[in-house]
Amino acid sequence: MGLSDIESGQRNDAGIAAVIGVLRQRFGDQVQTGEALRAQHAHTTTYIPGQLPDAVVFPASADDVKLIVRACVDHRVPVIPFGTGTSLEGQVNAPHGGISIDTSRMDRVLEVNAEDLDCTVEPGVTREQLNTHLRDTGLFFPIDPGANASIGGMTATRASGTNAVRYGTMRENVIAVTAVTASGDEIRTARRARKSSAGYDLTRLFVGSEGTLGVLTSVTLRLQGIPQAISGGVCPFPSVEAACDAVVMTIQMGIPVARIELLDALQMKACNAYSKLSNPETPALFLEFHGTEAGVAEQAAMFGDIAAECGGSDFLWTTDPERRTELWKARHNAYWAALQLRPGAQGISTDVCVPISRLAECVVQTQQDIATAGLIAPIVGHAGDGNFHVLVLMDTKVPAEVAAAEAFVGRLNARALAMDGTCTGEHGIGQGKRPYLSLEMGEGVSVMRQIKQALDPLNLMNPGKIFSFDH
Amino acid sequence: MGLSDIESGQRNDAGIAAVIGVLRQRFGDQVQTGEALRAQHAHTTTYIPGQLPDAVVFPASADDVKLIVRACVDHRVPVIPFGTGTSLEGQVNAPHGGISIDTSRMDRVLEVNAEDLDCTVEPGVTREQLNTHLRDTGLFFPIDPGANASIGGMTATRASGTNAVRYGTMRENVIAVTAVTASGDEIRTARRARKSSAGYDLTRLFVGSEGTLGVLTSVTLRLQGIPQAISGGVCPFPSVEAACDAVVMTIQMGIPVARIELLDALQMKACNAYSKLSNPETPALFLEFHGTEAGVAEQAAMFGDIAAECGGSDFLWTTDPERRTELWKARHNAYWAALQLRPGAQGISTDVCVPISRLAECVVQTQQDIATAGLIAPIVGHAGDGNFHVLVLMDTKVPAEVAAAEAFVGRLNARALAMDGTCTGEHGIGQGKRPYLSLEMGEGVSVMRQIKQALDPLNLMNPGKIFSFDH
Repeated sequence: MGLSDIESGQRNDAGIAAVIGVLRQRFGDQVQTGEALRAQHAHTTTYIPGQLPDAVVFPASADDVKLIVRACVDHRVPVIPFGTGTSLEGQVNAPHGGISIDTSRMDRVLEVNAEDLDCTVEPGVTREQLNTHLRDTGLFFPIDPGANASIGGMTATRASGTNAVRYGTMRENVIAVTAVTASGDEIRTARRARKSSAGYDLTRLFVGSEGTLGVLTSVTLRLQGIPQAISGGVCPFPSVEAACDAVVMTIQMGIPVARIELLDALQMKACNAYSKLSNPETPALFLEFHGTEAGVAEQAAMFGDIAAECGGSDFLWTTDPERRTELWKARHNAYWAALQLRPGAQGISTDVCVPISRLAECVVQTQQDIATAGLIAPIVGHAGDGNFHVLVLMDTKVPAEVAAAEAFVGRLNARALAMDGTCTGEHGIGQGKRPYLSLEMGEGVSVMRQIKQALDPLNLMNPGKIFSFDH
Repeated sequence: MGLSDIESGQRNDAGIAAVIGVLRQRFGDQVQTGEALRAQHAHTTTYIPGQLPDAVVFPASADDVKLIVRACVDHRVPVIPFGTGTSLEGQVNAPHGGISIDTSRMDRVLEVNAEDLDCTVEPGVTREQLNTHLRDTGLFFPIDPGANASIGGMTATRASGTNAVRYGTMRENVIAVTAVTASGDEIRTARRARKSSAGYDLTRLFVGSEGTLGVLTSVTLRLQGIPQAISGGVCPFPSVEAACDAVVMTIQMGIPVARIELLDALQMKACNAYSKLSNPETPALFLEFHGTEAGVAEQAAMFGDIAAECGGSDFLWTTDPERRTELWKARHNAYWAALQLRPGAQGISTDVCVPISRLAECVVQTQQDIATAGLIAPIVGHAGDGNFHVLVLMDTKVPAEVAAAEAFVGRLNARALAMDGTCTGEHGIGQGKRPYLSLEMGEGVSVMRQIKQALDPLNLMNPGKIFSFDH
């Protein structure tokens, strides 16, 4: 996809002006049109240029959202939901202009049901805020995409992260949502029961729909008990293949690893330089085990045997929190360390996900591709899921670099699809991955479009995301 | 809902005759119209009368399914997918007549990817057949709804069963499906990656759609490693409340129980009589733990402490397979034992699911209701999920008994919904639970209907299921 494919879209200027007037009357200075704020709300961490909304409105309740959506639908104006702006594929851009609904004031934890291990929050609650709120309950919300994202945004992009291998993704951890659809009604997708066979799975339909079916107004989440013990460790391997062999055996043995992260040699080198470490500059796995004291010790011992069998050397692990943090330092600082491989460059993160049996092959071919293309791009993977990120370090102001990176992303996606993988394990489609969705889904995209058209016939809910311009 | 609400529907007799002709030409004696066979294909284990399809066709491939669906759509004739006929809410009835697509000849395991812990099967493969096929791989498919159902049917009704508390339901264990939709095209809902953020979750849309969106032609499933050790046990409790307290504490502590089943006092009494056991005739929990030798021992010990704290007496457990079978005998024979509470009666199973904090309250109120209504109806619950079954023993030929049972089911559902639960944890909506779907979902049902209309505008895919007659 070239930049030319990010269409600026048809604008309904009269409608936009009218709706801003309506919203101003109702929300006063909770409607903002200053350029800096609007630019911040089109924040994108890709090479896709920002496309600013015409106004940003800050609702405080589901009723406010209903009012805003109805006004926008009445005036045929696009609605773009906004959490914290940490999405990576242009999900908050406004290609047709329109109203950004910033949910940051909808930040209440509405209820915590400790006995049921669930809670309901407004969409603007961030994951760190939620875990702080839960501190005294013995429970935690496990999904950790890295950024301190909002629960609404995480739900909308079907986020996951390092511990999805154990706890699943937002798909498995959202019990229900409420959302205001293009009809202006608020629906609730499910009750609080842990399972149900009652009709279509509307919860899963909204999880990952990137705002294209409506605006989330609350999310009911599964929680987990804080494990009695946590052990963490790191193990260098002679090759990516050897590390991935150990991952496959670990999963096959049913060892319930909480995290199993792969860093490639370039990333390890960057980490050594940045954090002044002396890890071997070979691929490495970083692991975390959750359970009882005896359980985490047993898991670590079992992994140690597997690592040794696969050629890993010196698997170091500990249950001591400080020592654990030390062992994981390279992983924790990986992003900042990677940026220092090319000071002043931007780091553009892209992700794919393949069956774990193909992970080594996919990573190695990708490394060769990076070398051939002359890119600087370390790799960090959520290896237990077959999901990995490539951080392309580039100067987004140099068109040739952008073109080279785009071409690389195209080849990366083709490679993942050829291995029966997906063009995005956790970042979503947004604008950036749209060209790959049809390649991945074939006729399935028609079914998605039919659903979109049925629920949003005027294409006002975050238009231009997931699907191309005209749906 | 009364029987009068099960409409016999408008029939398209000319279309049906024409399509049978077309199918006969193509499929010869794989098209059957004998009444006995048709009656078997309208098998229903509820008090809903059977509504026979006009013909049963036995496709051998996805291409056959495509041809059948296209012929039916061309002639405006309903299509009713059929697995093994073990659904409980009238899912295979043909209220408008039409063609039953029996998938029993589509019984091939298409691939097993041991390294990725997944497999792809045709929809007619049964779960026992699959586990037999997997025997030498060290893997198994965990979902166990009791009956030896087909994987297609289990997918279509979002089935689960005893070990969903550990391994999840079909929702969590289906990676992808292929399905022939009303357009006559075959779509694939996802690739084989363990997670994906690529567009709408079509897999979850088809899981639980009960054939109303198309006919499944293959299912890709997650598999699990066979645990190194299994321990099982049983523990009597002085009351349902005490047993449920133990369940809640077990889940909160994060003990990864593989099964935690509740039998009420009446069911325990029935089991003693049927299997000549001498269990205390009080509520009891039946447990199973999966893990390492040390792990299952630790889990059992932890549960023992919880049980003692909650007033449970004599938690017996073992890792010895024979002794384990013996301890679980009451649970294994529960259905047959229950039937002997009223010899000659039919056992009609209904299910609801509530947040586990409400399980005790819901079960106790339901027992009181059963007593007041003068029914004989033991209760067995998948307690870790808050899901329980009531087996109403009745003579379905006596209208007053049917009416009393229907009224009871109505009150049971209202009770579960009032507790933020669902009208069905695992049996699906079919015809029998349709009146409760709107009560549960409110405006959400409109969204479901919009999806149904978009994907099946002529309402030919298993019409009259999930939604009422006219969608």
